[in-house]
Amino acid sequence: MPITKWEQTAPGIWRLTIGEPQGITPLTWMGVAPKDEALQQMPQVEPPFAWDRVQLEEAGGRFILSLPLNRTEKLYGTGLQLLRMNQRGRTRFLRVNSDPKQDTGETHAPVPFYVSDQGYGVWVDTSRIVTMHCGSTLKQEDRQHEEIRDRNTDKGWKATPVASRVEIQIPAEGAVVYLFGGPTLSEVVARYNLMCGGGVLPPKWGLGFWHRVPTLYSDQQVLEEAEQFRLNDFPCDVIGLEPGWHSHSYPVSYEWEKSRFPEPASFVKELAQKGFRVNLWEHPYVSPQSELYAGLQPLSGTHTVWGGLAPDYSLPEAAELYKKQHEEQHIQIGVSGYKLDECDGSELTNNSWMFPAHAKFPSGLDGEQMRQMYGLMFQKMTADLFRSQNRRTFGLVRASGGAASTMPYVLYSDLYDHKQFIRGICSASFSGLLWTPEVRRARNAEDWVRRMQTVCFSPMAMLNAWGDGTKPWSFPEVEGTVRHYIKLRMKLLPYLYTAFAVYRELGIPPFQAMPFVLTPEEIADAEAKLALDEQQLLNTTDAAYGKKKAREWDDQYMVGDALLVAPLVEGETEREVLLPAGIWYGLETGERYTGGRVIRVQAGLEHIPVFVKSGSIIPMTAALSHVPAPGTLTEIELVHFGTEPCTARLYDDDGETYDYEQGKCSWWNLSVTIDQDGHYIGAWMGENDGSSSYQKVTWRFAQTHLLMNEQQ
Amino acid sequence: MPITKWEQTAPGIWRLTIGEPQGITPLTWMGVAPKDEALQQMPQVEPPFAWDRVQLEEAGGRFILSLPLNRTEKLYGTGLQLLRMNQRGRTRFLRVNSDPKQDTGETHAPVPFYVSDQGYGVWVDTSRIVTMHCGSTLKQEDRQHEEIRDRNTDKGWKATPVASRVEIQIPAEGAVVYLFGGPTLSEVVARYNLMCGGGVLPPKWGLGFWHRVPTLYSDQQVLEEAEQFRLNDFPCDVIGLEPGWHSHSYPVSYEWEKSRFPEPASFVKELAQKGFRVNLWEHPYVSPQSELYAGLQPLSGTHTVWGGLAPDYSLPEAAELYKKQHEEQHIQIGVSGYKLDECDGSELTNNSWMFPAHAKFPSGLDGEQMRQMYGLMFQKMTADLFRSQNRRTFGLVRASGGAASTMPYVLYSDLYDHKQFIRGICSASFSGLLWTPEVRRARNAEDWVRRMQTVCFSPMAMLNAWGDGTKPWSFPEVEGTVRHYIKLRMKLLPYLYTAFAVYRELGIPPFQAMPFVLTPEEIADAEAKLALDEQQLLNTTDAAYGKKKAREWDDQYMVGDALLVAPLVEGETEREVLLPAGIWYGLETGERYTGGRVIRVQAGLEHIPVFVKSGSIIPMTAALSHVPAPGTLTEIELVHFGTEPCTARLYDDDGETYDYEQGKCSWWNLSVTIDQDGHYIGAWMGENDGSSSYQKVTWRFAQTHLLMNEQQ
Repeated sequence: MPITKWEQTAPGIWRLTIGEPQGITPLTWMGVAPKDEALQQMPQVEPPFAWDRVQLEEAGGRFILSLPLNRTEKLYGTGLQLLRMNQRGRTRFLRVNSDPKQDTGETHAPVPFYVSDQGYGVWVDTSRIVTMHCGSTLKQEDRQHEEIRDRNTDKGWKATPVASRVEIQIPAEGAVVYLFGGPTLSEVVARYNLMCGGGVLPPKWGLGFWHRVPTLYSDQQVLEEAEQFRLNDFPCDVIGLEPGWHSHSYPVSYEWEKSRFPEPASFVKELAQKGFRVNLWEHPYVSPQSELYAGLQPLSGTHTVWGGLAPDYSLPEAAELYKKQHEEQHIQIGVSGYKLDECDGSELTNNSWMFPAHAKFPSGLDGEQMRQMYGLMFQKMTADLFRSQNRRTFGLVRASGGAASTMPYVLYSDLYDHKQFIRGICSASFSGLLWTPEVRRARNAEDWVRRMQTVCFSPMAMLNAWGDGTKPWSFPEVEGTVRHYIKLRMKLLPYLYTAFAVYRELGIPPFQAMPFVLTPEEIADAEAKLALDEQQLLNTTDAAYGKKKAREWDDQYMVGDALLVAPLVEGETEREVLLPAGIWYGLETGERYTGGRVIRVQAGLEHIPVFVKSGSIIPMTAALSHVPAPGTLTEIELVHFGTEPCTARLYDDDGETYDYEQGKCSWWNLSVTIDQDGHYIGAWMGENDGSSSYQKVTWRFAQTHLLMNEQQ
Repeated sequence: MPITKWEQTAPGIWRLTIGEPQGITPLTWMGVAPKDEALQQMPQVEPPFAWDRVQLEEAGGRFILSLPLNRTEKLYGTGLQLLRMNQRGRTRFLRVNSDPKQDTGETHAPVPFYVSDQGYGVWVDTSRIVTMHCGSTLKQEDRQHEEIRDRNTDKGWKATPVASRVEIQIPAEGAVVYLFGGPTLSEVVARYNLMCGGGVLPPKWGLGFWHRVPTLYSDQQVLEEAEQFRLNDFPCDVIGLEPGWHSHSYPVSYEWEKSRFPEPASFVKELAQKGFRVNLWEHPYVSPQSELYAGLQPLSGTHTVWGGLAPDYSLPEAAELYKKQHEEQHIQIGVSGYKLDECDGSELTNNSWMFPAHAKFPSGLDGEQMRQMYGLMFQKMTADLFRSQNRRTFGLVRASGGAASTMPYVLYSDLYDHKQFIRGICSASFSGLLWTPEVRRARNAEDWVRRMQTVCFSPMAMLNAWGDGTKPWSFPEVEGTVRHYIKLRMKLLPYLYTAFAVYRELGIPPFQAMPFVLTPEEIADAEAKLALDEQQLLNTTDAAYGKKKAREWDDQYMVGDALLVAPLVEGETEREVLLPAGIWYGLETGERYTGGRVIRVQAGLEHIPVFVKSGSIIPMTAALSHVPAPGTLTEIELVHFGTEPCTARLYDDDGETYDYEQGKCSWWNLSVTIDQDGHYIGAWMGENDGSSSYQKVTWRFAQTHLLMNEQQ
């Protein structure tokens, strides 16, 4: 089938319309303008392949879009993928799924956007399920005879042949496809994020520590637990309430349960006075006991969930009912945000905890579309609510999708494998998503401290004790280490906040998987050194088809552009780390490493391996018990690592409002130079327009580690 | 939408045509006539519900068929289901899947046929994927307010609400739906099997012991290993060869590798002389090195698998090429059958080991249809080949579907959980399928002997040592027990063979899950006594939604109508057994039990709990090293259990041909009566038409156990 012409919409972005796309899509639902200015400043690039190498055909009433692949190309992305990072060779069935235990592509946050390490990406903007065959299909005409080997005797036989195309199954009605150029992978992702409006800038308090209390706690129990944080010297900014705050749950009422929370307004106010924000859990299904029920009933889908309505929030009148109730009963009394649970239910893995694909909604959407869009709908509705008050929010969501980079939400899961949770930080970074490896409980002190270390270097540092009643100090033998890392996060807030500001302005994610900073060749070299012989496990019950998965370096990641985090999990005392080229220091050990190779590091329980790039400037502050109110003067320490001159940027604003969109924010250029006498000179260049409360900058030069004990 | 009229096609069977069904379906592909005579003898029953309670609507271009459910009704079937037996409350996505690790309904053998414990069943005969919402959807109009509970405080809250309907998603073009009446569940399944042509009667040797040798064994190694069976006094009837017999594999050639098998004909003949049949592994994908390649190439699908062709065997000319080659190179030299592997590849879980759903085939079928039908196609082609020679075959297949009850194939899986493997025996019985819990290797001697005990009481007693090189005597500490149970299987062959003859004639499966012999009330009573409080695990990381699964009694099953098998797995020394009403004896212990309740039994490694119903007659024979050639006189011992008079049936024929279809077979009525002096009198009534070699019947009356040591 001849392909409709690709149309260039911005530097390095091309659009192809297939069929006659209908209804809402992630991009149209978000309704956010692209960050044109930043896009215009990106390099002009050519399309990654000749247009005639892209083919379109119809099959079984659907469209199949075929795009070329080279032999060694790796494909990342496709949303949050907890089970693998490189999707090459896999078919990704991009259906939202709340229980994604098998490696099918199903996930809490499917995004039909793959990013090639060759420096381009392909996104299908649709509300329907897309299946992406990421080099997992071979056609007769692709066959290269010399590659067909005999498994019986040829040691070179591989279970997964190398395919030469991606085949994307586009929904029957069609879809809009975007192609993003690079030249680097980082620029591909940046273009995608900028086209979707840029990255989110959370409120500063959102980057502090979060604690979710047991579901049936009363206001007094919450206040007492909050007090324990202060008494025990554990920072905490946000307290999350779980289902028990509702008068009815599963399905929910969105109304305060008066026996546990007789005076919600004064409860929220009292916590605010102590420096805590309140976050409220909810899910989409409306109880007959809710005041909203009668109004939403005619605006809901044919099917119920837990007996509750599944409202059609693509209808403005339904959204208005939801927003009005939330504004009056939660936001006006000071609630800071939401945890949006179970908008990702899977009809397949989770019984009846979701409406079926064939459910019908008053707007004309069906269950498949509504499921794929539900998480985005709740994010957008709640974000708009807070925006209308000129207050930023930050919260949690269990389902997301495309075009979500501006949303102030972090993904989480009921799964709980620590390695998968680390991989989530990596995989989310390719698709405009944020992920928290939340801590809930642990098998032992080692498991506890390892999980806590990871979560402190993630988009949201949270203990979710809703069901297990844990506290950060639950394992006394590691209490000091846990406190240390929560405080280290507080100290690094100026650095983290700047990384998010870069996300917002340039679309570059604050947390990045290694392919953002390594070339395909560097990754291939590191893999080759560690590759196991695929044959060694072939023909056994354990591995009938041989070893399936090469090491992907999906267990380490960048935080901003200067820190590399390589967590350990329970049972490990050492690990391999792939360090990019250059000189690196152990952030807390001061040990010096030459990068561009794989190193092996040891770390006892008191330590998570974090590396800082020589030639970095890390802005830090004191480890307060919570983020101070806007206007509170904040001392900044700028720590220069290594011996060379360098530059960096630092961002600040009021930390709470959207005034930065009107330019009320400060960007400083930091630099370290060396004068002719060999003295280091630090410069802090830029103007504080009054939005920042940073002051009293001190410098530390030529450091190799943080000297953490000084400040503890 | 008004429903097209239901049409009665046989006693207790109604047909509904929805839309305009196209293309081949399991039933049309099999082309087997219903067993009308047996169907006519079944009871006339009324439809299970008023026709107006069945609704049909269109949604998203598909049809949704809605059928009523009562509150406590259980739904079984939907094909081989390894993860649960009762599908009530679950959505079953009935896609063929080679790696069905999650409980979605995907399976090696999806059959869109659910069987209600209320005595009816519903089957959709289509080559497309069907989604059955088995009481997992609730519509607004179904909502019963009094059932919506508050999870926060109401202990009666349940994660899965009780739904009042099944919703079946029918393919866009439509499908034919069959409704089967009972009145009992057993009769529902019998009607389904009879409509599909009745059950398969394997050759007698197929019920002996099977051993598959390591994949790269040469003819000499195979012969030596076969000899070891005789030397070690382990019965064995079939030797299976794995991929290494092909000149090329993955993709395959179907041609003998001359370096390992220089003289296939004499190799097969030599094994035959020693009492061994040869079974050949194969998969569907044709190597460019195969002589078949050139002819099949234009008759194949657009996509390749492992570089091999995926032929369109719905085309008679393609099937003829396949059959001619197989006949000439395998069957004419004495090969007894096949193991049909990888016809169930999943594009989702297994990379590129299957063509995609959008693949196109010359007949007009697409990849979805071909995947759902592939296993059935290979079964039918190979069964027809042997039938044309008037030789029965018996083999293995990894994919199956509807209308498969006449097929001489047993399902298997690369999965290896012993509990799941036991459940497979149970779940397969509802859908006209057979399943083997094959043994491959073990963690230790206990695991080994427990798996061996189970497999000896299954449709195919097989050790599959293709990758691990195990032998039945691999664990010397349990060698005696393993030998004992393989020999016990040989002794029970007349009983087993009769159970299969009943399957063939009456459609009643030879292996049956407990709902075949227990009423819903009996099962509910047993469940209630053992039910765990669903709340006890609620609100923890382990069980965020509470305990998910009630005990289903899916770990014990009937073999024929007299034996109940309750396997143990590694780590267990005792277990609960739900015994149906009546008196039961431990088959080998002689212990007497009163049924109609749950008992607890102990069993050391030397013992698998098997129970025999008082008032049964078990026909037995000697434990030979293999099934003797037709015409070899065979002594039969009839063992009467208990003290009451009773009757039973015994079947025999030549054991190898289809002559029984022309009536060359013998059915005997056995009876035990008690004369006025209190003596037992055994009667063996019926005629041997010459097809049977059974002779010299001896009786043992009023037994409580087998006295196995007598004959060993």
